[in-house]
Amino acid sequence: MNDRILTLRNKMAGLNIQGMIITKPVNIKYLTGIDAEGILLITRKENIYLTDSRYIEYVSNIITPFDEIVIDDFKNISEDDYESFFMFCENVGFEENYVTYATYKKFMHTYKINNFVEAECLMDKLRMIKDDGEINNIRKACEITDNCFEFLTKYIKPGMTEIEIAKKIEQYYLENADGNSFDTIVASGENSSKPHAIPSDRKIEEKDIIVIDMGCKYNGYCSDMTRTIFVGEPTNDQKKIYNLVLENQKKVLDEMKDGANIRDLTKIVTSNFELYDYDLVHALGHGVGLEIHEDPVLRTTNDNNLKEKMVVTDEPGIYIAGNFGVRIEDTVLIKKEKNEVLTKSSKDYIII
Amino acid sequence: MNDRILTLRNKMAGLNIQGMIITKPVNIKYLTGIDAEGILLITRKENIYLTDSRYIEYVSNIITPFDEIVIDDFKNISEDDYESFFMFCENVGFEENYVTYATYKKFMHTYKINNFVEAECLMDKLRMIKDDGEINNIRKACEITDNCFEFLTKYIKPGMTEIEIAKKIEQYYLENADGNSFDTIVASGENSSKPHAIPSDRKIEEKDIIVIDMGCKYNGYCSDMTRTIFVGEPTNDQKKIYNLVLENQKKVLDEMKDGANIRDLTKIVTSNFELYDYDLVHALGHGVGLEIHEDPVLRTTNDNNLKEKMVVTDEPGIYIAGNFGVRIEDTVLIKKEKNEVLTKSSKDYIII
Repeated sequence: MNDRILTLRNKMAGLNIQGMIITKPVNIKYLTGIDAEGILLITRKENIYLTDSRYIEYVSNIITPFDEIVIDDFKNISEDDYESFFMFCENVGFEENYVTYATYKKFMHTYKINNFVEAECLMDKLRMIKDDGEINNIRKACEITDNCFEFLTKYIKPGMTEIEIAKKIEQYYLENADGNSFDTIVASGENSSKPHAIPSDRKIEEKDIIVIDMGCKYNGYCSDMTRTIFVGEPTNDQKKIYNLVLENQKKVLDEMKDGANIRDLTKIVTSNFELYDYDLVHALGHGVGLEIHEDPVLRTTNDNNLKEKMVVTDEPGIYIAGNFGVRIEDTVLIKKEKNEVLTKSSKDYIII
Repeated sequence: MNDRILTLRNKMAGLNIQGMIITKPVNIKYLTGIDAEGILLITRKENIYLTDSRYIEYVSNIITPFDEIVIDDFKNISEDDYESFFMFCENVGFEENYVTYATYKKFMHTYKINNFVEAECLMDKLRMIKDDGEINNIRKACEITDNCFEFLTKYIKPGMTEIEIAKKIEQYYLENADGNSFDTIVASGENSSKPHAIPSDRKIEEKDIIVIDMGCKYNGYCSDMTRTIFVGEPTNDQKKIYNLVLENQKKVLDEMKDGANIRDLTKIVTSNFELYDYDLVHALGHGVGLEIHEDPVLRTTNDNNLKEKMVVTDEPGIYIAGNFGVRIEDTVLIKKEKNEVLTKSSKDYIII
């Protein structure tokens, strides 16, 4: 059986869960490699992937005998089959943050489940630790993002709109990767003071600061990077805030490694910002993988430790309402005694 | 109060529903024009939009006093406020196909709701009938799709891959619209026999048939069109199937108008296909609007009638496994005594 499904089964056993219905596409892709429409049943005896005629051929080509996954067409499954899948299972798990209420009710009824328990965290925990293949994909996505950013530093000129620049980034990612991994943020001038600004028709002007938050997908895996750049020489105010954010971003990088406590890492930034009367208004970072936002979330309420082979972001920011904002973000691979910053674009003042 | 919310309130009253929590973004956009992160509460007395500091300014600029929507920040809402929103409501509705099981449980608890009832159909029904503004947006999205298709007929050449062509379509939509409205299908040669083929590395060859299913978004509204084109003179087999599909697509168009029964429309195609031993393996069509797939679904199990100002697709297809397939699809506006085909690209043999 493939390692990922085996690990899931071990985690299920630890929670007295005998069966599981997996429907979230990235979780199915993670466990099986399959990128289609269907569902994965982990039953006592078997791993079963149910799909329809559109995908049977494609799926059969992806699965190897080693995976031990039975493939079947929904249309071959009788009412009795459904009721037998989880017979004698005390607890069956499902993904409570993905499955809609309507689907939950349908599953309960169709599979005649006794105890249908919230078990999405099993998948989230599994996916937090990346294997070498996953790391290579994220590494490549980060490399393409670095290249795109280098292209941008030559491309962006006063007079262009934020939307124009954001579309250019998305076109670059379409040509060089599998598209963007989230809605690109290009926030210039006073717009940069909104942490989640939506690109607007605002034209880039002299003396603007521009926050660019960008990432792409490569083989399904995401990258995530933010740089804040300057149109013309930065003002003293801009430099002061930029240096404060960068200093904190680097302090966190100095401490990010296997065993580092997430709350402590976040407190480095919140405590230092407080000294200058600033707040960290969003999380310090988040896991990155098949999804752009995965576990762990890096915030003071998370008392867990980083572990080797997690991939997380480090992205402090300061936002001065109506004036300007600065955010600097890298995607970081956690290692035993240190870390490796996967996004390598310069964090010196970038002046266009 | 704005017309759309008023109509929703009337429909709610008809079902003895006194309150509603709306969380699906397109439903909120439909009712309020707001395109942000937040939720809309329809309470006995008020319409309340809850969001966070990122969106307060943007939302305040969108809403007019005429809308009668109270805007507030989640962080100002106390535990008591939540419990008071739906006090004295016998039934409160929610969107059962959008709300996850985890959110359902959280809402039940936070709002202290007595009877939380599945009411998504209220929104689906409301959105089926388009107003003039919506129709104009869909019309424009269809026009851009026609232009893109014209561009394609000159662009596509043997030797290009399906992925290359699909990316070109998506780039065209990025430049001329707000991106594509669904994953573009470019299925050539034997791949065209899969109704929902995913673009592959297969290169276009002489004598290929190519099914292209494409659509864009304009002001949030979708277009949807499929054309099947030929590389070089079509074979007799290809012509025979093409003509059969086209004939049926046109027969349906002849009958599509206010009052036409959906089951009867679908039977036109299924009965005719049967005469030649073919099956219609997917729905005949679907509603189009803020989402690419909306109500009504056009299939034999739907006994409802089309209504004026619905926008639906008409997309019969025949797929001969391992050989080739043909699908022809238009987006169609239903009118009182007739219809208007919004996608106007030629359906004659297109040979590249």
